[in-house]
Amino acid sequence: MSEAQIPVAVVNGSGYGGVELLRLLGHHPRFRVTEVTARSEAGKAVTAVFPHLAAYDGLRFGERVREAEMVFVALPDDASAELIPTLLAEGRRVIDLSAAFRLRDPDAYPQWYGYAHPAPDLLTRAVYGLPERYRSDIVHAQLVACPGCYPTASLLAVLPALAAGLIEPSVIVDAKSGVSGAGRSLKLSTHYSEVNEDVSAYGIGRHRHTPEIAQEVCATAGITGAATHVTFTPHLIPMTRGILATVYAPLRPGVRTAEISEAYHAAYADEPFVRVTAQPPHTKWTMGANTCFVAPFPDERARQLIAIGVIDNLVKGAAGQAIQCANLMAGLDETAGLPREGVYP
Amino acid sequence: MSEAQIPVAVVNGSGYGGVELLRLLGHHPRFRVTEVTARSEAGKAVTAVFPHLAAYDGLRFGERVREAEMVFVALPDDASAELIPTLLAEGRRVIDLSAAFRLRDPDAYPQWYGYAHPAPDLLTRAVYGLPERYRSDIVHAQLVACPGCYPTASLLAVLPALAAGLIEPSVIVDAKSGVSGAGRSLKLSTHYSEVNEDVSAYGIGRHRHTPEIAQEVCATAGITGAATHVTFTPHLIPMTRGILATVYAPLRPGVRTAEISEAYHAAYADEPFVRVTAQPPHTKWTMGANTCFVAPFPDERARQLIAIGVIDNLVKGAAGQAIQCANLMAGLDETAGLPREGVYP
Amino acid sequence: MSEAQIPVAVVNGSGYGGVELLRLLGHHPRFRVTEVTARSEAGKAVTAVFPHLAAYDGLRFGERVREAEMVFVALPDDASAELIPTLLAEGRRVIDLSAAFRLRDPDAYPQWYGYAHPAPDLLTRAVYGLPERYRSDIVHAQLVACPGCYPTASLLAVLPALAAGLIEPSVIVDAKSGVSGAGRSLKLSTHYSEVNEDVSAYGIGRHRHTPEIAQEVCATAGITGAATHVTFTPHLIPMTRGILATVYAPLRPGVRTAEISEAYHAAYADEPFVRVTAQPPHTKWTMGANTCFVAPFPDERARQLIAIGVIDNLVKGAAGQAIQCANLMAGLDETAGLPREGVYP
Amino acid sequence: MSEAQIPVAVVNGSGYGGVELLRLLGHHPRFRVTEVTARSEAGKAVTAVFPHLAAYDGLRFGERVREAEMVFVALPDDASAELIPTLLAEGRRVIDLSAAFRLRDPDAYPQWYGYAHPAPDLLTRAVYGLPERYRSDIVHAQLVACPGCYPTASLLAVLPALAAGLIEPSVIVDAKSGVSGAGRSLKLSTHYSEVNEDVSAYGIGRHRHTPEIAQEVCATAGITGAATHVTFTPHLIPMTRGILATVYAPLRPGVRTAEISEAYHAAYADEPFVRVTAQPPHTKWTMGANTCFVAPFPDERARQLIAIGVIDNLVKGAAGQAIQCANLMAGLDETAGLPREGVYP
Repeated sequence: MSEAQIPVAVVNGSGYGGVELLRLLGHHPRFRVTEVTARSEAGKAVTAVFPHLAAYDGLRFGERVREAEMVFVALPDDASAELIPTLLAEGRRVIDLSAAFRLRDPDAYPQWYGYAHPAPDLLTRAVYGLPERYRSDIVHAQLVACPGCYPTASLLAVLPALAAGLIEPSVIVDAKSGVSGAGRSLKLSTHYSEVNEDVSAYGIGRHRHTPEIAQEVCATAGITGAATHVTFTPHLIPMTRGILATVYAPLRPGVRTAEISEAYHAAYADEPFVRVTAQPPHTKWTMGANTCFVAPFPDERARQLIAIGVIDNLVKGAAGQAIQCANLMAGLDETAGLPREGVYP
Repeated sequence: MSEAQIPVAVVNGSGYGGVELLRLLGHHPRFRVTEVTARSEAGKAVTAVFPHLAAYDGLRFGERVREAEMVFVALPDDASAELIPTLLAEGRRVIDLSAAFRLRDPDAYPQWYGYAHPAPDLLTRAVYGLPERYRSDIVHAQLVACPGCYPTASLLAVLPALAAGLIEPSVIVDAKSGVSGAGRSLKLSTHYSEVNEDVSAYGIGRHRHTPEIAQEVCATAGITGAATHVTFTPHLIPMTRGILATVYAPLRPGVRTAEISEAYHAAYADEPFVRVTAQPPHTKWTMGANTCFVAPFPDERARQLIAIGVIDNLVKGAAGQAIQCANLMAGLDETAGLPREGVYP
Repeated sequence: MSEAQIPVAVVNGSGYGGVELLRLLGHHPRFRVTEVTARSEAGKAVTAVFPHLAAYDGLRFGERVREAEMVFVALPDDASAELIPTLLAEGRRVIDLSAAFRLRDPDAYPQWYGYAHPAPDLLTRAVYGLPERYRSDIVHAQLVACPGCYPTASLLAVLPALAAGLIEPSVIVDAKSGVSGAGRSLKLSTHYSEVNEDVSAYGIGRHRHTPEIAQEVCATAGITGAATHVTFTPHLIPMTRGILATVYAPLRPGVRTAEISEAYHAAYADEPFVRVTAQPPHTKWTMGANTCFVAPFPDERARQLIAIGVIDNLVKGAAGQAIQCANLMAGLDETAGLPREGVYP
Repeated sequence: MSEAQIPVAVVNGSGYGGVELLRLLGHHPRFRVTEVTARSEAGKAVTAVFPHLAAYDGLRFGERVREAEMVFVALPDDASAELIPTLLAEGRRVIDLSAAFRLRDPDAYPQWYGYAHPAPDLLTRAVYGLPERYRSDIVHAQLVACPGCYPTASLLAVLPALAAGLIEPSVIVDAKSGVSGAGRSLKLSTHYSEVNEDVSAYGIGRHRHTPEIAQEVCATAGITGAATHVTFTPHLIPMTRGILATVYAPLRPGVRTAEISEAYHAAYADEPFVRVTAQPPHTKWTMGANTCFVAPFPDERARQLIAIGVIDNLVKGAAGQAIQCANLMAGLDETAGLPREGVYP
């Protein structure tokens, strides 16, 4: 703790992404949250709204960022797209948790998000914040667009097989998510009595994470054509945190079981936050931690790869990955302040 | 209630399948449970073990069936395979909830279940107890093998498209189940603190319901080759009851969206327990009821059919379907004693 | 079913109380729901809003009651207090699920509910709809005020000991409720991610069910002074349905353990929906059923009675009890259409 | 991290208490787990049994402690009572998470635990490991007996009022616990489908934490007579972690509301892990953290104090409190390695 602390700001610290940033940054050895905004809570003490955030006695929610040169933005997509050009123009470095700058193709926004992108030129400058794939670009980025929770789990599960040419680039992602991914805003679909003891699919064939998954699948496979190669079905299940993505793709002819396992272990041998496992992974292993477990299961009989990825959607799927990126940007140890052990049971 | 009551027996009334039979039969207008066995509870009053079964004041668990000519068997597979030949030889009609007589191919038992079938000749006499497909055979059957919970949800979801030739017979089933499907026996995988706030896959590529799904998929599609056409991945999610099966299959070239919907509505127009819906169905709609909701979603972009089926695994996936079959066998109204409205919320 | 059906109306059929009335009435042998209102859903088909209500194909939500002479009102308190005088003036018989007419003392409304009662004269005409205590009055009532969910569980647990003079009339009620008791309206306190994996108390020392419990405690003990004799603390726990009330009261000097048990068995010997148990009861035993389990535990060491009552808050604590009252009012079998077996597990 | 690390051992690292010790110690700045035992897992890699414990790559479960001078014992009571005399004789310092050495009166063991204590002389040497009350004794102890989870929440909630003479020493504790408190051993009462969507009381009038609570209540109030002053009713609720204790005690005549609040704030002003709150606290605020929230609510009308304490039963109620004690024993910062922020939501 003797080293100088780096002041950072959190924009919209009252949503689940923002409040998780505060929890994790509260223990960070080098970053120190000096500013946090939340329009609806402006003026209130952080601990009055979130009593669990013991580390923040004394800090109050503000309305906008003033000093910090490093800014975490945890706004909804459209608000993020509006604010970030200004932050960049002011010379700040931005880690965005929203989808506003994730897609490189501006045309994808009207198609999937329903609006024309207000700053399409920034889409090519933004770096997709998946360190396992874009680590060196993140180091120098001014704007990092952190992946969505579903894409993080799905891509970490499938990319090694795709990169090694072991599967066809025709991917079905069946994902199961805890309810916190739907945010802190009130909706009937996140009302306790509706979602408890229930499972349902939603956004079938039109969820906004589809083009994001497709973008990286195609980039890795070296093809174009995007979304036609990906079928994505998210499901809401009765738990708070955690995503499990089950990814199906046809094994290429002649591929042997051993090759699959080797490709995954090779891809993740040096990754601090990805662990390859031979048993079906549990989201509970990742609760509160920045760890992703990946497990490939080749089904020789049906000639399918079944690859599973699990994360805590609010950590490796949001706040934790954002801090991992920020660590890289600031030249710190990539793992600084990020727990690797899940809160089990 | 003026009509004569039909005495029935429940074998193994202390597992979740058996106890649900007791709950439902307690309100049945014509069947009356006169005998219930449970080896470990023999001699005890039913309400001493299961205080919620108010209708059974006075009945005690016994060791074996004596009088009843109609017998529901809710034993594990191997115990079921052993007992049922005797029950049939005694001239009784049997509704079996286990997997012992579901597969028509005797060779499937050593391959998937790990044992040689003790009564392979009965496999051809047994009728697969899916009324929506084998209604007329069930009416006259002496032995009905009720489908597994996963196959029920999966098959009701996919068979109309398959029967109408709208999809390729190459099916991926990604299923999510509540924990009661794993039974009442104690296991670490069903220990509360392990499975609560958790999701995981299990039995990947080797679950015993795979050949059962494949058998009916192939029979419907008019092909042979069985299990190579089906990939099945079950997941355990933190709720007690309910199964949601998400089935993926390639749309055949030229198939239009409207054809899909028409095929499903036509297939189920007269079914008392299957409801086709245009919105993603929730397992909560079926809690405690014998209803299955089916929803087909053609993804034109990726040329996939995504068909979803939801049931209560203990009702339409077990005890309710067994009673539905027994109603048919006894010449009663098929819906007698079976709730159609889920306990929501 | 050959007997004539009695048309009934449900006012506000889109809240959890109303929708549970619809579920239960859907199977009632004599009552038939011919009208259902729900301001926000007026004009929509019941099954479009609640797909699980298979019995209601064809019925649409309306805006107000027209024909039915028997009306279930499941409105919030204030709306109920406003509507019911009109319904009564039109000559209908009303079963009210709200708190609008539960308290006999008009002064309690400003104190506990924050408003002056708009029809104080009706408070003495209304019968408190707890059949176990006011059965004969309910039979002839034009207006029945069904008890709250907490009072039902608490009073059934403690009244026998109080009526028999075995305890002091100084009662602490510590109650635990599932979340459905908070209704279908959206609140942060019923947002899934807030209430899942959480327990908290609320309304400490000022919950509106306090004077209701006190009214009946004092009436039974034959004292006045009301609320000073009752401490009531409700807690919200992460489940959908169910209330467990743990009631503490000092044993009177000289009272023996056996007397307690005898008093409870005597009090409930002929009650169709109350079961006395010697083991700690589980809310799960009552899920979806109109049953209340009551268990008295005298603690000789500390000279306290610990009496536990469990119910399904939406059935015996709301819709089921309302139907039980309506059965009495209509001269039907008190148990008509009401399940006694919980959906376990 | 430049300071020398202190090797510690964990005995029985495969129960929930032990595995939580491993999680927390994995991030401790000074303690380093060099030995961990677990009879049933001996020889296996820690991460093979608990994949979430990423920090323990390379460590294997052993059978007994060899080197470490500081030992955390997370055994069942009886095994703990047997082992600890040996550990002490070997000169080690022991932090015991079991109940084996919590009660100062040897006679309480046959009465409440059903066995004669094998080392009664150690009962007076053991220090009760509640730092908020016995901090200075803990510093020098060779044997610390960490409080039970229920007593921790209950005592922190009630002691300030008792110590200040504001309430009568006649206490009712109504506690609600998550299921992890029941441990990792398989039981029907912790089987998922039994406990999910359910609440029940257990051990009514005879739970073993009763004399432990009574011991400290009486010591604080300066009275004898123990257990007659405490009524304790634990309840199991459907969540994994967390305890909420609602404590009721009669306000002494003349005590004013303001005095209550002042007493609590004064008592805990300098405590790093206890936070006094004016709103009803949520267990979710403490998930994974060593924090206890305490909230006193004087009910002037009924002249009762309702004091609520919430903790994570596995942290402040077990492993975290043990580390807090060990920090004191080792002369470290009391808060070292202990998170104060709960994993919310």
